[in-house]
Amino acid sequence: MSPETARSLPLARWADRLQRSVLRQMIAVVSRPGVLSFAGGLPDPALFPTAAYSAALQQVLADDPRALQYGPPFAPLKEHIAALMAARGVTCRADDVFLTTGAQQALDVLTRLFLNPGDLVILEENIYTGIQQVLGPFQPRILTVPTDLATGLDVDAVEEALLNGARPAFIYVIPDGHNPLGVTMALEKRRRLVELAHRYQFVIIEDDPYGFLSYDAAPLPPLRALDGERVLYVGSFSKILAPGLRLGWVVVPPALLPRLTVVKEAGDLESAQLTQRAVAAYLDSGALPDHIAGLCHAYGARRDALLAAVAAHFPAQARWTTPGAGMFVWVALPPQTDTRTLLTRSLEAEQIAFIPGHAFSVPPHAATNCLRLTFSTCSVEQIHDGIARLGRVVHSAESAPPIPAPVPAGL
Amino acid sequence: MSPETARSLPLARWADRLQRSVLRQMIAVVSRPGVLSFAGGLPDPALFPTAAYSAALQQVLADDPRALQYGPPFAPLKEHIAALMAARGVTCRADDVFLTTGAQQALDVLTRLFLNPGDLVILEENIYTGIQQVLGPFQPRILTVPTDLATGLDVDAVEEALLNGARPAFIYVIPDGHNPLGVTMALEKRRRLVELAHRYQFVIIEDDPYGFLSYDAAPLPPLRALDGERVLYVGSFSKILAPGLRLGWVVVPPALLPRLTVVKEAGDLESAQLTQRAVAAYLDSGALPDHIAGLCHAYGARRDALLAAVAAHFPAQARWTTPGAGMFVWVALPPQTDTRTLLTRSLEAEQIAFIPGHAFSVPPHAATNCLRLTFSTCSVEQIHDGIARLGRVVHSAESAPPIPAPVPAGL
Repeated sequence: MSPETARSLPLARWADRLQRSVLRQMIAVVSRPGVLSFAGGLPDPALFPTAAYSAALQQVLADDPRALQYGPPFAPLKEHIAALMAARGVTCRADDVFLTTGAQQALDVLTRLFLNPGDLVILEENIYTGIQQVLGPFQPRILTVPTDLATGLDVDAVEEALLNGARPAFIYVIPDGHNPLGVTMALEKRRRLVELAHRYQFVIIEDDPYGFLSYDAAPLPPLRALDGERVLYVGSFSKILAPGLRLGWVVVPPALLPRLTVVKEAGDLESAQLTQRAVAAYLDSGALPDHIAGLCHAYGARRDALLAAVAAHFPAQARWTTPGAGMFVWVALPPQTDTRTLLTRSLEAEQIAFIPGHAFSVPPHAATNCLRLTFSTCSVEQIHDGIARLGRVVHSAESAPPIPAPVPAGL
Repeated sequence: MSPETARSLPLARWADRLQRSVLRQMIAVVSRPGVLSFAGGLPDPALFPTAAYSAALQQVLADDPRALQYGPPFAPLKEHIAALMAARGVTCRADDVFLTTGAQQALDVLTRLFLNPGDLVILEENIYTGIQQVLGPFQPRILTVPTDLATGLDVDAVEEALLNGARPAFIYVIPDGHNPLGVTMALEKRRRLVELAHRYQFVIIEDDPYGFLSYDAAPLPPLRALDGERVLYVGSFSKILAPGLRLGWVVVPPALLPRLTVVKEAGDLESAQLTQRAVAAYLDSGALPDHIAGLCHAYGARRDALLAAVAAHFPAQARWTTPGAGMFVWVALPPQTDTRTLLTRSLEAEQIAFIPGHAFSVPPHAATNCLRLTFSTCSVEQIHDGIARLGRVVHSAESAPPIPAPVPAGL
């Protein structure tokens, strides 16, 4: 089939303009062999509980005749998730838990359920690209607010917009281990945002894939722990077990569950029974708390290594976040730096990859002097070595003439 | 949270009217212990290749460090699917195959890609409820066409609508093992429908979950074998391996794949790597052709048993389909029969379940005198016994006064 024929197929209007996210394009570009990558938002596969999960699968397939059949959401898994939420400070029952095919599906079904065409959504200026992809087909109006790199989302800016008449359908937030910023939202801001949601009658989608990966002595409560009515909590096993499972959940008022069920059924009927039952069997073993403690220990050491290396090797004018959770550090270089050009130089000179901040920006914003570094994938030794090499590129770029042709061409 | 609070949450307008599909409500009602069910569209779990799939999972988890990580679609699985399509008479390459989280997701992403708000879609009067659920949020105009119970979709009616100016975005068809009708579309009709798609520039979504379960000596070619430009083919492992995997695929012009990728990423990022790799490992073993032959042998015997039992025990005025593929027989009883009432009587008197035809009807149609019988779940002995008992209920209903209160109340 020729490209002409493809274009002549009668696609929906919004799909005609569809492009791959810049982030996904970039990850394809930087995933070449030999590249030391701080780019992808990937957990370390060496830390997956592979043997234990394999045993759980074998046990379920040997003992449970319903493991490969269609079936309703597996109630024992929902019980486990309610217990897991208690460890995050959230009081909920299994009946408040709705299972999804990864957290991404949760964002999709919640958006479908709450967004009318032309509605307003509040996002931060730099935010997880997956929510931007979900919103695309709905073509909502988007109001962006800044983020303070020490205390998170600018709630003053949200309140000002509301006072000026903005009436959002929802606001999307990642209060812990923010992607891409690595910032933690301050407790006082959490409280005020929930108050605003009640006063102005919008809902908050709280995306929490990283909250269990906490490196602070006393993690803050998720928004859902502060409010059970207007906060729709999205959780995921991708970062605490493995992404290859595609299993997530939402905690919502139970009155929403019948409607969520219908929307999810339209999307994929149900999430894989085998995965639901095998994860429940793994959780039955009681191994998860120790597993998460091990992840926090390992990733915490890598965070410390990355922060120390950035401090040692980046220019004095650089600023960066100190993540209390998650997998990411956000670095702001002097305003004249173009991190897309920097990536080209870095790949050529040192085979080091990162994601330019621009990839996460909600248009018309463009964080052209920023970059995201993932610390979860590399060893402490690789971090020391890689950040030293990246630091050399940054220093030389500060004094070099600009070069054209960022990678990839679409940027 | 009170129901009042739930209603006060600002749901999207279409979601405010959202209801569970009648089919799904019914399946919940008839899945009680002690009920002999011809209701659910379920394959027989005793026929799943459970041990072989467990071995495939173990092997992949032991050998493949990428099995639990994020990753691109697994190319060897796409190669296997292209070979599988060749067995259906379809010539395609791995590059034409796009992996989905079950066939349902394929219907969802194709609909999102091709349907503008207010567009026209052509459906049969009685059709798989999952496509009706997918279409719901888009609120398309729907044109229905009848189905001949011997030769399938009424292509004359499609052509007449087109001649009268109808310009559909797409038509949705199940040419083999139609759900719920169990009918096979005649070859001449397949050819004419493809011609019409070219002449009037619409696309055909061909849903083929049952085509591999063929009980005829010479199965007909899928529409995709007749045309690779305007036919978007949807396949599934649910009926030939197991539904608990949630793995399906589409075969489409490769120029569509980048856009499909973006739409799918918004829905669930990607399908589970572990499932992709384990199914590929199972297919590597070469066991699938014999497995499918075994399924056709077992289900074919059940189909024969059901057809013989219906002929022996149903009233002379009853008419039914003779499925060449799939899992379903459609029975039309005399026009005055109400199969919703019949289901109430059948559950009470004989503990036998089926799905009233009405559950599949596209409003304003209502196949109130019809019912769907699934022959894949029960043994031959259960079929002989169960259909004899159901026949008694049908006979007694023909002479009994009508009773109110169909099950469930929503019907």
